[in-house]
Amino acid sequence: MAILDIIKTLQFPLPFEIHLPDGSHHKHGSGEPVFVMRIKTDAALSDVMRQGSLGFGEAYMREEIDIEGDVQEVSRLGYALMETDALTPTFMEKLKFLFVYFSRRNTREGSRKNIQAHYDLGNDFYSLWLDKEMQYTCAYFHDFKDSLEKAQLQKLEHVCRKVRLKKGDTVVEAGCGWGGFARYAAKHYGVKIRSYNISQEQIEYAREMQKKLKIPQSQVEYVLDDYRSIGSSGEKYDKFVSVGMLEHVGRENYYGLYEIIQKVVEKRGMAIVHSIGRRFPRKPDPWLEKYIFPGCYIPSLSDMITPFESLPGHDLHVVDVENLRYHYALTLDHWWMRLEKNAEKIRKQYGEAFVRMFRLYLRAAAAGFRYDELTLLQVVLSNGSDNTAPLTRKHLYK
Amino acid sequence: MAILDIIKTLQFPLPFEIHLPDGSHHKHGSGEPVFVMRIKTDAALSDVMRQGSLGFGEAYMREEIDIEGDVQEVSRLGYALMETDALTPTFMEKLKFLFVYFSRRNTREGSRKNIQAHYDLGNDFYSLWLDKEMQYTCAYFHDFKDSLEKAQLQKLEHVCRKVRLKKGDTVVEAGCGWGGFARYAAKHYGVKIRSYNISQEQIEYAREMQKKLKIPQSQVEYVLDDYRSIGSSGEKYDKFVSVGMLEHVGRENYYGLYEIIQKVVEKRGMAIVHSIGRRFPRKPDPWLEKYIFPGCYIPSLSDMITPFESLPGHDLHVVDVENLRYHYALTLDHWWMRLEKNAEKIRKQYGEAFVRMFRLYLRAAAAGFRYDELTLLQVVLSNGSDNTAPLTRKHLYK
Repeated sequence: MAILDIIKTLQFPLPFEIHLPDGSHHKHGSGEPVFVMRIKTDAALSDVMRQGSLGFGEAYMREEIDIEGDVQEVSRLGYALMETDALTPTFMEKLKFLFVYFSRRNTREGSRKNIQAHYDLGNDFYSLWLDKEMQYTCAYFHDFKDSLEKAQLQKLEHVCRKVRLKKGDTVVEAGCGWGGFARYAAKHYGVKIRSYNISQEQIEYAREMQKKLKIPQSQVEYVLDDYRSIGSSGEKYDKFVSVGMLEHVGRENYYGLYEIIQKVVEKRGMAIVHSIGRRFPRKPDPWLEKYIFPGCYIPSLSDMITPFESLPGHDLHVVDVENLRYHYALTLDHWWMRLEKNAEKIRKQYGEAFVRMFRLYLRAAAAGFRYDELTLLQVVLSNGSDNTAPLTRKHLYK
Repeated sequence: MAILDIIKTLQFPLPFEIHLPDGSHHKHGSGEPVFVMRIKTDAALSDVMRQGSLGFGEAYMREEIDIEGDVQEVSRLGYALMETDALTPTFMEKLKFLFVYFSRRNTREGSRKNIQAHYDLGNDFYSLWLDKEMQYTCAYFHDFKDSLEKAQLQKLEHVCRKVRLKKGDTVVEAGCGWGGFARYAAKHYGVKIRSYNISQEQIEYAREMQKKLKIPQSQVEYVLDDYRSIGSSGEKYDKFVSVGMLEHVGRENYYGLYEIIQKVVEKRGMAIVHSIGRRFPRKPDPWLEKYIFPGCYIPSLSDMITPFESLPGHDLHVVDVENLRYHYALTLDHWWMRLEKNAEKIRKQYGEAFVRMFRLYLRAAAAGFRYDELTLLQVVLSNGSDNTAPLTRKHLYK
């Protein structure tokens, strides 16, 4: 079926226009279109039909597809198209994807490569569109109008409250990004924290900030190492925190991650795992996996929960699960607006394809969170039951 | 291995005494024992060794085992014993259990029998130890010292807030007990609610209360029917509420339950499923299943979540999961104390075995919630994503 015929079958709620290389076009709905998409070459059209999102993303990056208007709504249309069977990649394309995907498995060496491919793009680049604390995970908005800076600090505070941090706690963090959580927890809660990350650039930034802020090494320690090394010397912690790492762990390694949590968290200690989620198990998007997050896997809630239920003699309790889905849509809106403001600067250094790659990624993700595909889950665990814990979650909202 | 030898290997934290029929005894720990258990006959001892909790419970009921002190702590010892492999039922006993268990499967007819066996024991009996609203599910304590009456009203309010009830909402309730939730939601939120139950006695009580309180039929309707009939005429609701029914649904029927939720809840409507849970999937306790809740299955969180993730094209979002484990221990303490106050009265009508059966059930359950075995999960779902929903859960704690 020709692409316009497929699109005509969708009940997309907003008006848009699509122009094909042969000059034909389709105007959907009435009123001002939210986007005008021009597929400019036959190659681009054929790639979209054969490869789905991968073909689309690559053609957009090499400027054979142009978009005026909001790329988020294009992605939303893409999700709707993927729900039909008409535009899914061919069997050979799927096989190719699986072959490449498994070549990027998250062994220790594989994880290092996968993480560095994205997070070592340059701290200067990320500082152009992240907040001051360089939080590259979902913010927490008390109000739709909160600034990104405010919402990111609120996220850090929310995480601290969820694991009930208190002065003197020992904390381990798996996947610390640019180190913002450790700085916040040390400053506001007086904890002693060790933060792991395998991104060289991020750890260097975190250590520089530590020096600049004169935070003693005895309080915060940034470790350039894999989360799988946590607990390898038998050390224990009151609290385990992981914000935005699980997406890179790979489903096959969840069991091992929970083994570590069970092993290193003190009895009646707590853990939080904060991760992007899906409403059902599904392989990652091929374009996203290839260009943005190699080796990623986005878990469903059952993906997250099932592994530790089978830990022999385990004592982990799910205390609280919160879905912050819409907060990530808002976060991504902020990131994208900042990216566009700096597009000219980024284009000069990295080229047009790079700008388009990041625009598509941020807008496709926003569409995912805004329109049903993705969730954001904060799962709080207790190691053993603590009968002195607060009875309600009121302390999160004081 | 003899039972005393097994018990000696346990690191039980409190002092206790066990006396065997041959006159031998074991004193564990030092100080005042929390319980003294007398196994009075060889038959009782042999039943415990061969059948585990089933043998123990039956021997206790026929007064061949006596207990002075807190039966909760005996059950705690029982859980610890079951963790060792020494005292698990023999293969033949397990086979016998499975045979009987499957004979009590929750077909429509089976569910009716299973539910009536417990819930139709007599409204007068239950009113001796439940609160005024006859809430036979976990209460919600803001403070450890809250009365049961207060905590049960707080539970009803918490559930209303979690599904964001508002005036004019249409609500369906699956498994309504004696109808307290419907009365509360109608009175305090002005909703229109239809509540299903297959317990004849409970529905009769609920209808009498409705008459007494002059609640119009147009606002609350109690339906003596199976939850599987919900939505059978194509009717839709804004909210779906189920408090304490899932335990009786049977794991094989969860998928069907979620199909109903998906079908009957309006887009952007909400559902809550409140259920006892386990930290990992496990068959029910044979004694509990035989004497208290025939056909019951207590799900783990993954048991609860996994089925709807595979609903084709489903649109259910997990919005919130809260574990109220310790609240159920407190609730059960209250129920048990009221039961003991009325023990003489109950004994006269139902006999000593019945009193012992309920005592063991309430104290074993309290031990389960207090010491790690059991959880209480409130899972809130949204049907489709609602981008106008409150960003935080603050409204639960106003």
